Amino acid sequence: IEGGVEALEVLTPEEFEKSRGATVRVQHRVVALEPSKGRLVVESLIHRSRHDEAFDRFILATGARARRLGVDGEAAPGVFSLRGLEDAAALKTWLDTEPVRHVVVEGGGFEGLEMAEAMRDRAIRATILDTRGRVLGLDIADPMIAPMHEAMRARGVHVRAEQVTAIETEATGRVRAVRTNQGELIGCQAVIVAIGIEPRTALAESAGVHLGETGAIAVDDAMRTNVRTVWACGDVIEVPRVVDGNAVHWPLAPIGRRTARVAARNAAGARPADRFTGVTPSVAVRAFGIEAAHAGLSLDEARASGFDAEAIMVQHWSRVKMVPGSKPLHVRYVVEQGSGRLLGGELVGAEGAALRANVLVPWIRAGTTVREIAEEMDLVYNPPIAPATDPLRIAAAKAMRSVKGAGR
Amino acid sequence: IEGGVEALEVLTPEEFEKSRGATVRVQHRVVALEPSKGRLVVESLIHRSRHDEAFDRFILATGARARRLGVDGEAAPGVFSLRGLEDAAALKTWLDTEPVRHVVVEGGGFEGLEMAEAMRDRAIRATILDTRGRVLGLDIADPMIAPMHEAMRARGVHVRAEQVTAIETEATGRVRAVRTNQGELIGCQAVIVAIGIEPRTALAESAGVHLGETGAIAVDDAMRTNVRTVWACGDVIEVPRVVDGNAVHWPLAPIGRRTARVAARNAAGARPADRFTGVTPSVAVRAFGIEAAHAGLSLDEARASGFDAEAIMVQHWSRVKMVPGSKPLHVRYVVEQGSGRLLGGELVGAEGAALRANVLVPWIRAGTTVREIAEEMDLVYNPPIAPATDPLRIAAAKAMRSVKGAGR
Repeated sequence: IEGGVEALEVLTPEEFEKSRGATVRVQHRVVALEPSKGRLVVESLIHRSRHDEAFDRFILATGARARRLGVDGEAAPGVFSLRGLEDAAALKTWLDTEPVRHVVVEGGGFEGLEMAEAMRDRAIRATILDTRGRVLGLDIADPMIAPMHEAMRARGVHVRAEQVTAIETEATGRVRAVRTNQGELIGCQAVIVAIGIEPRTALAESAGVHLGETGAIAVDDAMRTNVRTVWACGDVIEVPRVVDGNAVHWPLAPIGRRTARVAARNAAGARPADRFTGVTPSVAVRAFGIEAAHAGLSLDEARASGFDAEAIMVQHWSRVKMVPGSKPLHVRYVVEQGSGRLLGGELVGAEGAALRANVLVPWIRAGTTVREIAEEMDLVYNPPIAPATDPLRIAAAKAMRSVKGAGR
Repeated sequence: IEGGVEALEVLTPEEFEKSRGATVRVQHRVVALEPSKGRLVVESLIHRSRHDEAFDRFILATGARARRLGVDGEAAPGVFSLRGLEDAAALKTWLDTEPVRHVVVEGGGFEGLEMAEAMRDRAIRATILDTRGRVLGLDIADPMIAPMHEAMRARGVHVRAEQVTAIETEATGRVRAVRTNQGELIGCQAVIVAIGIEPRTALAESAGVHLGETGAIAVDDAMRTNVRTVWACGDVIEVPRVVDGNAVHWPLAPIGRRTARVAARNAAGARPADRFTGVTPSVAVRAFGIEAAHAGLSLDEARASGFDAEAIMVQHWSRVKMVPGSKPLHVRYVVEQGSGRLLGGELVGAEGAALRANVLVPWIRAGTTVREIAEEMDLVYNPPIAPATDPLRIAAAKAMRSVKGAGR
């Protein structure tokens, strides 16, 4: 919101055509996809004209859209969701030109948190509504979230266990307040809807392409759909989670790029087929001076997947404790009982949390046990960077002692 | 040097006896070890008395000592090496009480670099002497070191390709200058000798315990020496490096703790024996505002181990480039030709370098290829934390393209 959003634009259509040798048609959309006939109908959004195109192979990359509240007043000027660059630009213009004193953010996930922080950075009051009454509820366990909430309180950002049931507007049509399921009326000059995104599957469904249980397009590990000539990739598909093989909708840019590459190579006839081995979900955020990161499964996810799992938590330090600048770092592991295998991990702290999540990923992928982490894994040590016994190892040692069958 | 060194003291002998139930004799040393007789001779350093003790099993944990220059004047007041807390305390006292304007640091490794920074933090001029004419020569490759040298120059710290050949003293006996192998005389009021440490093996050798090729004690994976009743651990032993199995002397605190635990369990009769699986060397430093980290093998080490290896280097950004605070981050990989296997990696930059080294370790241990890193590994993505394509993945993608046989 603070930088120039234009700088995020990577290539213009012309540059893409020139550098990649592909034809690019912007302001066009596919209105019908008929794989059995190898044909699609394209509409020009400018000329409103339609024409047919033949294809041998088709890649669905229709992405995802922001979820909507589905409440009265959602279309009012001053209500924003954030999916594309144009959404960010529109919000920025609103904040730059309207007398905005208070913003209500619906949804306390990563995006809602970042938006609340961006508002505070502009000295605008922000309130987060989340039915859980807390932020990052999908990724960070209850006992870990306190430092983030404390940092938010210090900046005057409140989290309320409510949700928007209606948006009220001024005579001018602009947003003036939200109503909540608690019967509250909260005055505000902007509403940001940050309740996640959903895959855009209409075209796929119309073409007979099957969706998976998550509601996103189901593909095999070559990114092929159930329709022989159709591949799919990016935010519109579901992907297997490495640790348990379950399909998840995990629409993040790095996964989009990876699945796009696999789909493109295979649709272009790669032999042997290129395979996508699945994701080990990992996310990180830095907001209000606190980092929070998560990799692998939460305790609930692990149990839902049938693991006999338990969680342990430790508090240690980001650097050697006595080094100036060292900050408390909270680590939580989700561990399979019996085997001691690491299934997931969460980190929260003022520094050193986010990048430490990266090392959890190969550990989780490989089925590494907490005993191996405590006793065999090398982690950098240097007082201004990390303690001799890293918090990641402290947590593993505690899990060895307290998770059934995880020790020796 | 700036904090209170006393705070590093973890347990007093009395606390240790009480909490661990072991007898502790400080101010005593073993002057003779006779495994065949199950006997050792102990000397009291206070009373100068000696007595025999019987033992069934013995653990050598004699550690390492700072290497000495072996030049005239090395014993003068004002010449320091840094091994124990008392060394740090003595240097601190000297700086607090003597009129120190310039300090010469011999050795441009991690320790020398940190010492030079500590001097600058006290507004004392510092000069590093290192025969390579650069710092971190064992861990960071030539083309990667520029950002660190630039940061040092900006703080007025110079690196000279020289070494001390003599230390000159005042009439009072205090150090006044060093002479170098270039015939230079460099005036200074303190000299810090930071040329590494060497294992203290005299007792082991006298007892018939074999050393390995590194000059440290050779042990098996149960930390047992060639003498049936003698184990060894910590900074006095050599350990196998996972990636090639070669023995290395890698005297860092985390390895000391791990090997001590294995030795203790096995000497106490653990069945099955506890095994130490070896190290994947990883180090990190933060000095003059620059982080430098290294994991696995350098290119020279890889080639010396018989790998057909090549190095590639990229420069990217610590966060999304346009995010305020984003800094250049340099990544260098050492990759096996043909297989594309990652053998080692180095990172240098103003932020985000040190903790990223941790994820290289499990990759290197597992024999992960640059193709797998580029296409299958999850790394956290969030603009204020890391780019959508992490520098670690950018480097892997480049290695896929430019290392023979590493691509598809």
